[in-house]
Amino acid sequence: MSGAPEVERLIDLMAKLPGLGPRSARRAVLHLVKRKERLLAPLAASMDEVVRTIRTCRICENVTTSETCEICEDPRRANGLIAVVQDVADLWAMERAAVFRGRYHVLGGLLSALDGITPETLRLPELAARVRQDEISEVILALSATIDGQTTAHVVAEYLDGTGCAVTSLAKGVPIGGELDYLDDGTISAALTARKAL
Amino acid sequence: MSGAPEVERLIDLMAKLPGLGPRSARRAVLHLVKRKERLLAPLAASMDEVVRTIRTCRICENVTTSETCEICEDPRRANGLIAVVQDVADLWAMERAAVFRGRYHVLGGLLSALDGITPETLRLPELAARVRQDEISEVILALSATIDGQTTAHVVAEYLDGTGCAVTSLAKGVPIGGELDYLDDGTISAALTARKAL
Repeated sequence: MSGAPEVERLIDLMAKLPGLGPRSARRAVLHLVKRKERLLAPLAASMDEVVRTIRTCRICENVTTSETCEICEDPRRANGLIAVVQDVADLWAMERAAVFRGRYHVLGGLLSALDGITPETLRLPELAARVRQDEISEVILALSATIDGQTTAHVVAEYLDGTGCAVTSLAKGVPIGGELDYLDDGTISAALTARKAL
Repeated sequence: MSGAPEVERLIDLMAKLPGLGPRSARRAVLHLVKRKERLLAPLAASMDEVVRTIRTCRICENVTTSETCEICEDPRRANGLIAVVQDVADLWAMERAAVFRGRYHVLGGLLSALDGITPETLRLPELAARVRQDEISEVILALSATIDGQTTAHVVAEYLDGTGCAVTSLAKGVPIGGELDYLDDGTISAALTARKAL
């Protein structure tokens, strides 16, 4: 279509990104081709650098350039506190909120019969080993408030039973800025059950 | 946020693509990092190849890997027929329709006081030179049916005045599959004025 197979190949690859279809991939590639020196060349170099340097943290499975990630190595992080997250995207989301000062454990998914994710595919033994070795006193389950997320939370809590560490979960309720009128019944019901004295 | 400056830099660059904001760029990069060998490495290589090989056609300004593009060099293309398009994206759109068998001329934009595009910045002298040298009998103005597009069409037509070649423009009317109820007044009005006997 563009007359150059090199460009067609780039369009095909770009179309595999989440959020880009064939049409928007074509638009993005044209944008890149027009800005060859200013954007396309730096982007190619940056991707190449990530390919060469990025790996997963041996401890928490965050993305990093060294054997263990910045967060796991940071001495200012609270010892004894681990947040269990579904994947790295959720770890980044927690970091953006910038209130959690412990370390993380990427679970590698949520239990899901449809996606074939069973307790055996999750990084549960690694979590239990960390809890025992690092004398973890609290594990916070920072998992999605969906059925899969909550099922997974229960399985993780059960798995850690007997380690002696406290297992907590993120609060459920009205999101900040949320208008009652627009909230689903489940959220209102959860917020009502977990109501607090002012 | 991700803890790795290489990844942050890639997110910043990806966020400059049309259709991707900071949030979707982060999602795309995470998707790439997870598929390092299968997607990120091929994408980096493909971009690098495009940087090294792609240039613009000397004649029509389509993207190409040689001095002149496949379309300009194709002997099966009709001689004497040029479609004037705003940019390469529109050239690709025309090629996808696969009905035009002439060659192209990328104008390099539409006249726009806001964007500072004047007749001097458009590739008008190159177009006139082609019309004279290649004995072009018809120039089809395949420009957007917007105010800027139609102003540009008039300026191009005026510029080619005296070359003796016919200047035509794409028909305006109801798009195929278009429902009258959803069309704007301008389209209905244009379609009515250009009505045809059955």
